[in-house]
Parts: sequence; structure tokens; C-alpha cells
Amino acid sequence: MKYAIIGTGAIGGFYGAKLAHSGQEVHFLFHKDYDYVKQHGLQVDSCDGSFHLDSVNAYNNTTDMPQCDVVLVGLKTINNHLLPSLLPPLLHERTVVVLIQNGIGVEADVQQLFPDTALIAGLAFICSAKTEPGRVNHQCYGSINLGNYSCKDEGLVSQIMADFTHAGIQVALVDYNEARWKKAVWNMPFNGMTVALNTRTDLLLKNPATRQLIHDQMMEVVNAARHLGINGLDESFVKKMIQMTDEMIPYSPSMRLDYDFLRPMEIQYLYTRPIEIARAAGFPMPKLEMLEAELLFLSQHE
Amino acid sequence: MKYAIIGTGAIGGFYGAKLAHSGQEVHFLFHKDYDYVKQHGLQVDSCDGSFHLDSVNAYNNTTDMPQCDVVLVGLKTINNHLLPSLLPPLLHERTVVVLIQNGIGVEADVQQLFPDTALIAGLAFICSAKTEPGRVNHQCYGSINLGNYSCKDEGLVSQIMADFTHAGIQVALVDYNEARWKKAVWNMPFNGMTVALNTRTDLLLKNPATRQLIHDQMMEVVNAARHLGINGLDESFVKKMIQMTDEMIPYSPSMRLDYDFLRPMEIQYLYTRPIEIARAAGFPMPKLEMLEAELLFLSQHE
Repeated sequence: MKYAIIGTGAIGGFYGAKLAHSGQEVHFLFHKDYDYVKQHGLQVDSCDGSFHLDSVNAYNNTTDMPQCDVVLVGLKTINNHLLPSLLPPLLHERTVVVLIQNGIGVEADVQQLFPDTALIAGLAFICSAKTEPGRVNHQCYGSINLGNYSCKDEGLVSQIMADFTHAGIQVALVDYNEARWKKAVWNMPFNGMTVALNTRTDLLLKNPATRQLIHDQMMEVVNAARHLGINGLDESFVKKMIQMTDEMIPYSPSMRLDYDFLRPMEIQYLYTRPIEIARAAGFPMPKLEMLEAELLFLSQHE
Repeated sequence: MKYAIIGTGAIGGFYGAKLAHSGQEVHFLFHKDYDYVKQHGLQVDSCDGSFHLDSVNAYNNTTDMPQCDVVLVGLKTINNHLLPSLLPPLLHERTVVVLIQNGIGVEADVQQLFPDTALIAGLAFICSAKTEPGRVNHQCYGSINLGNYSCKDEGLVSQIMADFTHAGIQVALVDYNEARWKKAVWNMPFNGMTVALNTRTDLLLKNPATRQLIHDQMMEVVNAARHLGINGLDESFVKKMIQMTDEMIPYSPSMRLDYDFLRPMEIQYLYTRPIEIARAAGFPMPKLEMLEAELLFLSQHE
């Protein structure tokens, strides 16, 4: 099995390095870090045990990379317009592309660009950051759920899961739609609200008005998903998400980090697409629509 | 006719001074400005012609004031808890109280406190500010609409209108509910959104996402009002309000000024009460509910 990592940042860098460290053949695409990693290798500081890859198959262009069996995409979705030029050199007939990305609608859009390519959604539950060139800081968690979108080769899916497990990554196979929408239950309220009100998850839950608002927004996602015929989401799941957040160390969601560091926010797949999908099915999500509008305003004015 | 002014600020001070300047007997309650006005009188700098009142019937306590035929209340609604102590000394059997205040539900709540007192809503269309002690700066507009809430003495209402007209104030008698809800069409979106996104009316309308949001929020007010059986509100009124705002000089709504100057915001009557009233009638206003929650959060954290 040959693995390729597109977007070797906090997420792609971590999973790719774990696979390489376990003995898999992994080819990494780098952008700014290429020269550094070529010379110094890749360092993973991890709560599960730190390690260093002395010799890394590093590239700064996918045309130099071999065709691979599995491509892990760790790009931010705002860079998905690059996929038509990045991906083709890596693909053979049976390549599966795992999109470890945020939001809803990503797979549908990528499938339109690559109608014959097998796609899997990767939902990462991980706190990690790329703190400096060639260095990934993995703070906690690290499991990944795979939701099969269009891969018909079950043997290949099993092989990926076995490789992840062998690399010490906790992996599970989940229902694609259920997994994407369940993740949206937390992501849609907290990513945007921490930006819109310039605050933290714990303060949003401490104020009774915004606690109720977060609950209402979560219920919009749950009800939209149910309306779309997706199982496994109900009010008890919302209560669980809120309770989990109550117990969490105050946490900056990825959109808040993007906003703070003046990077583009992933509004398209975290808001616009799920709102469109729900609305097309006759189920508007008014409070999340309002949040989308606020974020679009803020992304223009900051 | 004896007039009393409770809350001699930008609004009460302007209308009271105009009435006094036209020869009416007007008694003004002052708070911080009492000593200054006692000594120096009251200055109105006005686009319609400036003037100075040398001798003002100034008080710092309503117990010293005479009973009056008309009481104009220019307090911010966040101070309405003071009315039970402020008003009684001014009231005789036929006194009418004109509440020149923002929002929806004010008259119902004041009527509960004073079940036998005649109430009129005063809707001021005016740009004015109290810039320093004893000085009101009237920049533009200045008309007032009166919506009769519970005054059965039509002769008294006519007399008030005649006095206002004689004082050079443009005045009209309007349907109470229609007037309050029409004003909410502009007030509810723009007051809160300029605070929530820390921005101006023109920038909200320039961005397509927030322009649509403002439209949607205005339609929530229109549809709630229609649901409550109130006439005169429809989508063409919304379009007119947006067009009017497009043509306006960028303007800081009162809530934005309150927020900027660290004064309490009038969330209760601008949001909470109309939202409750609409919801009790089976018509939720989800985007304005979300805005209310954001404002409650901001009022706690700033």
C-alpha cells in the first residue's frame, strides 16, 4: 500500500507521520515546509509518545509523486479548488481518496470533479497544531471515523482500517451521512458563535441566553438531518453535546483560530452547503442562516 | 394646560422646550442638570432655529411639581422601574401620560402599574442629542406620531395635537399598534445588528449577506404583526424601509449609542417583549430571537 498526504499540516501531518512511523510507505506533499523537512525530517510531539521521522518522502509538487493507493487530503476546504491540479498525478484506477475535512457537501463537490474516484470522508477527533516548520504538536485525542461515500472496494477499506490501527490510530467505520451531520451539530453553532461574539465555548454556555441559542441551533441541525432521513440524531444527542462541552477545557474551534489568524474561514462547507441542502429539502435553519450572514459580513470586514 | 417633562434629555428636552418656547406652561424634571438649568436656563440648538429658555420651571423631584394635564415621559425604558415613584405626584384624574419611548409592550406594562391613567404612545422621528448640561442639539427631523393607547378624552388628545402644532412640532394621530410595529420593522434589525456586528447601517446594507438578513428580520416583524391582526405592514413597507436606509446618512441607532457609551441597552422592549408577544400568538421570530440572545450576551460581557 502506498499512501499520499496532501496538506501536511496539523491533521494530515499527524496521521501521515503515524502511518510512516508504523512502517507504511507514505509520500508527503509539502508547501512552505518542503525545504525544512527535506533537510531535518518531521517531528511529532504527541501526548501518545513523541517521535521523529529522519527520512521523509517529501515533495513540493504532486507531479513528482508516485500514484498511490490511498490519498489522505488534509487541506482546508477553502483550498479545494486546488484539487483538480493536485490530485490527478496521484490517482490510479483503484485509488481511494480520504477527505479529512470539515463540513457537509465536500464529498459531493469533489465527486463532481472526479466522478470515477472512490471517496471516503475522514472525521478527525483530534487537537493538534502545526507549531513551526516540520513540527506537529498533537495535544490530545486523535481518533478518526471513516464514512464511506463511494468506495466499492470493501477489502481496501478494511486494509486502510488495519493500517491505521497498526499505526496506533483509533479508527471506526461509521455511516457517512450520520457522521457528517452529527459532527455538524457541534461544529455549526460553536465554530461560528465563538467568532460572531468573539468569545469562548464555555462563556457561550454560561450565559443563559446564548446557552439556549446554542441548543436551538443544534436542534436546527438535528431536525434538518431527520428531515433528510438521516438516523441517529435527536434531542438527547444535543444534550450530550452540550454536556460534553460543559466538561471540556475551553476550546477555540478551527474557525475561531482561522479568524484570529486572519485566515479565510470555511463558511462554504460549514454553513452555506448544509443550509442549502436542508433548505432544498424544505427545511430552513433560520438561526444558522443568520450566523452564516454574520460570518460572511465579518469575513469581508476584518 | 400644564405639561410635565419626565426625563429631560435629547427627546423630552427638545419637545418640552419647544412647548415652553411657544408659551405653554411646562414643568421639567431634571436629574444631573438641575443646578445648571436653574442658573443658566435651557439651550436648544436646532436645525429649525435655535433658541434659549432663560427661565425654566425646573425641579429635581416630582414631589415638588404641580399636578399636570399632560406628562411627557422621555426616559429610557430601562428606567421605567422609577415610574411608580416618579409619576404619582403629577397625576390628577384626567392626566394623560405620553410615553415617548422605544419598543413594544411599554404601554401594557405601564398600564398595569397605573390602571386608571390614560396613556398615549409617542413615536418620535428625530435626531437629537444632549451634548452638555442644559443643552439639546437637534440635528434633523423632529416629528412625533401619537398612538392612542387608553385615552378616552378625545378633546384632550386634540388639544395636545393643537399645542404641539402651535409649538412648531409636526404631529399626527396614528393607529397605536400599527405605529409601534411599523417602527419595530426598522428598529429591531438595525439597533441590534449595528451592535452585534459592531458596524453601521450602510455597511450592513452594502454586504449582500447582511442585506438579505436585515430584509429577513424585517419580514419577521411584518409577518408577526400581520399574524397579530395589525394592518398596514407588508413586504413593500420593508422594501421602503431598506430604500430609506440606503438613502440615509449612516446613522448610529440608539442602542448602538447606548452600547458604545456603556449604558444599558433597551433589550427588554426592543426585543424580549415583542418576541414574547409574537410567540404567544404562535409566531416565532427566530432570527430576532438569535439577535436578542447575542445582545443579552454582549450586555453581560462588555
